[in-house]
Amino acid sequence: MRTKLRGVNALYPAPTTLVGALVNGKPNFITIAHIGILNYGPGAEGARELISIGVGKRHYTTQGIRDNRAFSVNLPSEDLIRETDYCGVVSGEKEDKASLFTIFYGALPAAPMIEECPVCMECRVVDIYEVKAYDVFIGEIVETYASEDALTEGKPDLAKIRPLLFDMNRRKYWGLRPEPVGDCWRIGVGYKKELRGK
Amino acid sequence: MRTKLRGVNALYPAPTTLVGALVNGKPNFITIAHIGILNYGPGAEGARELISIGVGKRHYTTQGIRDNRAFSVNLPSEDLIRETDYCGVVSGEKEDKASLFTIFYGALPAAPMIEECPVCMECRVVDIYEVKAYDVFIGEIVETYASEDALTEGKPDLAKIRPLLFDMNRRKYWGLRPEPVGDCWRIGVGYKKELRGK
Repeated sequence: MRTKLRGVNALYPAPTTLVGALVNGKPNFITIAHIGILNYGPGAEGARELISIGVGKRHYTTQGIRDNRAFSVNLPSEDLIRETDYCGVVSGEKEDKASLFTIFYGALPAAPMIEECPVCMECRVVDIYEVKAYDVFIGEIVETYASEDALTEGKPDLAKIRPLLFDMNRRKYWGLRPEPVGDCWRIGVGYKKELRGK
Repeated sequence: MRTKLRGVNALYPAPTTLVGALVNGKPNFITIAHIGILNYGPGAEGARELISIGVGKRHYTTQGIRDNRAFSVNLPSEDLIRETDYCGVVSGEKEDKASLFTIFYGALPAAPMIEECPVCMECRVVDIYEVKAYDVFIGEIVETYASEDALTEGKPDLAKIRPLLFDMNRRKYWGLRPEPVGDCWRIGVGYKKELRGK
C-alpha cells in the first residue's frame, strides 16, 4: 500500500553547508542545505562545475551574494553541529556569525571561507534562477580547499569529512556510517553479467 | 594546511535516485545523483516544490523527458544497490531496464514509478536549464508516494528508507547511521543561549 504525501519533497538527505558571503563589506555565514549539482564538469570537455544554492530572498545574506556575485560553500563536519545549526537560526543582521570561525580567503575577495570546515569551495555566481521567494544562485566552482586530514589519495573522503546531512521532513541531521556500502559502476557491471548468465 | 583541489566538486553525498521516464512510449529508468532542491515550497505561500535533475544530453532517457515534459524520482534503499548501479551503467537503448521492477503510475502518464522503492515522486517539467552537455530538468513535484513502512508519523523517515548516497569523488555509495545526529533548529537555539550567557 502506498500513501500519498501531497507532493512533499522527499529528496533528502542533503549535505548541510555554511554559505559564506560579504554583506555590507563584512563576512557572514548562513546555513543552507537546499543545494544542487547541475552537471559533472570533467565529463564534458571545457565545461565548468556548476552547483546551486537556494536562498530565501529575505535572508540577510542574499543581497550580499547578489551585490558581489560570489559566495563560498563550506562543509561542516558533525563536530560543528552547534555552530551550523546556530547559523541557520540567527540572522547576520543581528549577530556577528563570522566571529565563531577562523576565516580565510582564496581567489575571490567576496567569498569568505571557514578554516574549521574540512572542505570549502569558492564560487562565482554565473546566474540567478529566480523562484517565488527564492534566489537560486548558480555558482561555478573556482577553487576547492581541503584540509589534509579530509583527504584520501588526494580526494575528499566522506568518512573523514563526516558531513552533517539535513532532512527537512523530520527536522533531523544525519551522519554517515564510516564504511561505504559499495563501489559505483562495479556492482552494476557484476549484476549485468549475472543477469546475462540467467 | 589546505590543499587546493583544482575546483573539484565536493558537494557530496547526494541521494542516488532512479529517474523514470517514457522513452519512445516505453518506461525506462536511469540512475541520477546530480540532483538539487531549489526551494522550500511550503515556506513561500503558493509556491511549488521544485527539484532539479542534471541529465547528460546524450543519455537515452533525456529525449523522453523532453518529449513528455514529465519524469519520476524514485529513491532506492540500500537493498536495491545492484539494480541501482546497473541502471547507471547500462543504456535503455540496449536493455529493458523497466523489467527489473514492478511499475506503477500516478497522475502523470509519462512518469513511471518503481514499486520496490520506498519513496517515489512524480514531476512535471516546468523548465529546462541547459548547461553544456547537460539538460537540467526543473520539476514541480506533483505527488509523492511512500510505502507505509517508510513513514514515521506520516513523514518519510530516512532511517527506514535507508537511501543510497552517492559520492563522485571516491566513486562510492554510502549509507546513513540509523540514529540521527541531532535536531535541526533546536541545537542552534541552545547554542545561542549559551553564547549569550558568556
